[in-house]
Amino acid sequence: MSKPAQESNVVLVGKKTTMNYVLAIIIQFNQGADEVVVKARGRAISKAVDVVEIVKTRFLPDQVEVKDVKIGTETVGEGDQARNVSTIEIIIARKH
Amino acid sequence: MSKPAQESNVVLVGKKTTMNYVLAIIIQFNQGADEVVVKARGRAISKAVDVVEIVKTRFLPDQVEVKDVKIGTETVGEGDQARNVSTIEIIIARKH
Repeated sequence: MSKPAQESNVVLVGKKTTMNYVLAIIIQFNQGADEVVVKARGRAISKAVDVVEIVKTRFLPDQVEVKDVKIGTETVGEGDQARNVSTIEIIIARKH
Repeated sequence: MSKPAQESNVVLVGKKTTMNYVLAIIIQFNQGADEVVVKARGRAISKAVDVVEIVKTRFLPDQVEVKDVKIGTETVGEGDQARNVSTIEIIIARKH
């Protein structure tokens, strides 16, 4: 996951505040994006769900919907340090 | 959410250890369940995803799959104390 987070409508949720990511998503939709992909790993997964729910219920009600939610596992680190971390990917799409 | 967590193949993820919930799910499948619904709210959402991923990749690989993931919002508390909390519901199903 070394790619820039903002590339192609992807918002990578990490250690910033929830509202930071909420605004990043709203900006993408205001710039004409049809879909935004919200990704997170580990403990940030709960925050990613909060972010999407706040966008959907408070800021863009009736305008966007959750199109898909995928969960998975990634291996981070190498050799003895390798460990698994859970991931989530939430696709929000503009309603037509 | 005052119903018993174990009712009808539901596992409600909360403050116990991750492995506690992993075992609860494995027991349900061993007792013949075809589907198990894993639910969590707030900060426990990340743990719920970990639980499902551990069951799927480590304990029951090739035997179960994630059938659906839903996210939502619930209001907890009343009046001035009311606040929104995010929820997740992950359905794991036996592969046929």
